[in-house]
Amino acid sequence: MQAVLSNVTAVAGDSLAARTVSLRIEGTKIAEISQDALPPKSGELLIDAEGRLAIPGLVNAHTHLPMVLFRGLADELPFDEWWKTRIRPVEATLGPEEVYWGSLLGLAEMIRSGTTAFADMYFETDAVGKAVEEAGVRAVLSYGIVASELDQRGKEELRRAEGAIVRWNGAAEGRIHAAVSPHAVDTCGEAVWREAIDLAKDRGVILHTHLAERKEEVESCRAKQGASPAAYLDRLDAFSVPTLAAHCVEMDSEAIGVLAERGVTAVHCPKSNAKLGMGFAPVAAMQKAGVKVALGTDGAATNNRLDLVEEMRMAALLQKGVSRDAAVLPAREVLRMATCVGAEALRIGHGTLAAGSEADIVLVDLERVHTLPVYDPLSTLVYAAQSSDVTDVIVGGRFLMRDRELLTIDEEKVKHEVKRLAKRYRN
Amino acid sequence: MQAVLSNVTAVAGDSLAARTVSLRIEGTKIAEISQDALPPKSGELLIDAEGRLAIPGLVNAHTHLPMVLFRGLADELPFDEWWKTRIRPVEATLGPEEVYWGSLLGLAEMIRSGTTAFADMYFETDAVGKAVEEAGVRAVLSYGIVASELDQRGKEELRRAEGAIVRWNGAAEGRIHAAVSPHAVDTCGEAVWREAIDLAKDRGVILHTHLAERKEEVESCRAKQGASPAAYLDRLDAFSVPTLAAHCVEMDSEAIGVLAERGVTAVHCPKSNAKLGMGFAPVAAMQKAGVKVALGTDGAATNNRLDLVEEMRMAALLQKGVSRDAAVLPAREVLRMATCVGAEALRIGHGTLAAGSEADIVLVDLERVHTLPVYDPLSTLVYAAQSSDVTDVIVGGRFLMRDRELLTIDEEKVKHEVKRLAKRYRN
Repeated sequence: MQAVLSNVTAVAGDSLAARTVSLRIEGTKIAEISQDALPPKSGELLIDAEGRLAIPGLVNAHTHLPMVLFRGLADELPFDEWWKTRIRPVEATLGPEEVYWGSLLGLAEMIRSGTTAFADMYFETDAVGKAVEEAGVRAVLSYGIVASELDQRGKEELRRAEGAIVRWNGAAEGRIHAAVSPHAVDTCGEAVWREAIDLAKDRGVILHTHLAERKEEVESCRAKQGASPAAYLDRLDAFSVPTLAAHCVEMDSEAIGVLAERGVTAVHCPKSNAKLGMGFAPVAAMQKAGVKVALGTDGAATNNRLDLVEEMRMAALLQKGVSRDAAVLPAREVLRMATCVGAEALRIGHGTLAAGSEADIVLVDLERVHTLPVYDPLSTLVYAAQSSDVTDVIVGGRFLMRDRELLTIDEEKVKHEVKRLAKRYRN
Repeated sequence: MQAVLSNVTAVAGDSLAARTVSLRIEGTKIAEISQDALPPKSGELLIDAEGRLAIPGLVNAHTHLPMVLFRGLADELPFDEWWKTRIRPVEATLGPEEVYWGSLLGLAEMIRSGTTAFADMYFETDAVGKAVEEAGVRAVLSYGIVASELDQRGKEELRRAEGAIVRWNGAAEGRIHAAVSPHAVDTCGEAVWREAIDLAKDRGVILHTHLAERKEEVESCRAKQGASPAAYLDRLDAFSVPTLAAHCVEMDSEAIGVLAERGVTAVHCPKSNAKLGMGFAPVAAMQKAGVKVALGTDGAATNNRLDLVEEMRMAALLQKGVSRDAAVLPAREVLRMATCVGAEALRIGHGTLAAGSEADIVLVDLERVHTLPVYDPLSTLVYAAQSSDVTDVIVGGRFLMRDRELLTIDEEKVKHEVKRLAKRYRN
């Protein structure tokens, strides 16, 4: 689009300093940010954004999008019962239709809460990709490989993972990229891991996996491999490929050192970790050691939301509570995790508002009874705003939501289809 | 009002079982709840509430309402610096005008998030009371006594506390009650505490205080009094008066035993405790020991919201994370804390939807892209819904919000006044 956002409080550049500016969008990019008024050129849309905060589009660095279908289906259960007894059996019944409508529901929720890019791990990847293509956001898609042996089944899993790369890497005018996703150290055997790492190297895509989410996972890895999951994967040379490592809850200083040294991006999922009773990832310690930490929601079957505005608040509050230190994980840092750190890990730009950057912009109304008064817009965003305050979402210079109306997704249709499909999962 | 809510999914009775019912309101009370359709009588309003969840009005059992004026003014600071250096100096400048407009802003936020009753502790109580009277909610108001000695200042504090009782206990057609609020064991001396306890006994009102919020508070009490704050107040016979004890973070089993034995209601404020770096209250342990635990937000200068929908979610998730047990503090229990337990502690009824109860009812739209599908409405409410899903709020048979429009508060006026007043607090 060709447009000028005027009178907008923008969290601009690497410093994330909030100031009132005019911001020009030309085509897919931010052309200019100025503290002086920018008079619109002929044919340019002028949008007065007074009272709105402009932030870079939020990046959800770990989710399982179609699992919104199972939101609230199996709460308050231990992990093994949740996964093996409740979720895997219903997942086995999912086909492209369910995954497509579930994906659109999740995408509607994500756009409404200011998310413009996400890293996904699931199956029926073509149905996920079709939904993402229609919705207009950016995504790193992958087929989640679960296979203990490199037998016929294991090879079939890897073939599916490769098929997803072939069909989706670079799709949707470059908005979609692909990753290789071996599920975790205890759900994929070593031969499968080695093939997956080679596949990522051959195809030039990133790795996306779960790491040290559960005590049992770490203990079994130590017993079998004599190493933490991080050290074990490093031994397999996994981290020569840029890697998203979701969760990182059970991390000792040695494991943290591996991630720091190898440039692995840990994806913090505070709500999912808390709700499943996993505990709290040592975010402050990881950051201190130099680990890049992005933010993710995990799937809605454990969260139960795909809402990064809430996830930012939860990350900040939990880490302060655990550290018994109000200064830990300040608003600016948690916004950085949800924007720049995530964007760089997904390799979709710098995740900042700056001239020359992709125009991935979210406007948030800070003039609400629950946000006023505004002394520091970053504090207001992280500690007081909520997803329903997001008014506009722009990806690559295109409005996906304007004045709270979704422009790429027919919400009523999606809700209707999901309600219809969900009847079969009811106990 | 005279009305029938039809096709509503109501969380009814003590069991909080969700079922589709018709619910008749006559005057200020719920007259009838039926699984059969209730045809409206002549003159009765018929409200089709299909897709809406009806819950008892939420009860915020600990807050400092006018502190919304300082929302985001002093984040990420240690408690002493937050309170002594930043908040007390600006509080010293507050008069009735500031407190009145701040109260209305906080009330608008509370009504929008489904809160129908709250327990407050602040000063300029007449301005708080005036705002509450206009807004139409229920409240237990108190003047927060801070005085180390029973000198002239200490006596003046007690006189103000008594004046608030005289003017507000039973006001607003009985919607407002009063409490006596000695601030905490380390901010009021023993002689002041004794007078405050006597005042509550004489006037037949409850006590409202902070208890074991901070490690330093507990350590200084142990050093000075040779007892935990709970045991020390018990020694002063404070708990012969029904008591709201806010926070209860630093509790050993002996202190927990005191609260259980004396029937004290602990008020859990998970977000404030986390954000200030205080840690996590042992809610599961307190409940197991038989302590009644209600839910509160604390003030918006530490939370930074007065949103019990979010507070319920935070309580459930934090406790699961701390306990490393996904089954701890299930949705039903956390809703009980935010309704029945709070209502009984504030002595404003049973906090349930039942024939004969006060018509304090909140409707929540569960048909949103972030809430669907709905397998268990209680799970959806606690783990997925947000305050912006609250559509209607009824207190004593009167709509305070209808279809998301506030009927008793002029929001634009309140926002305008608060923005004007807040300019003076900016650094």
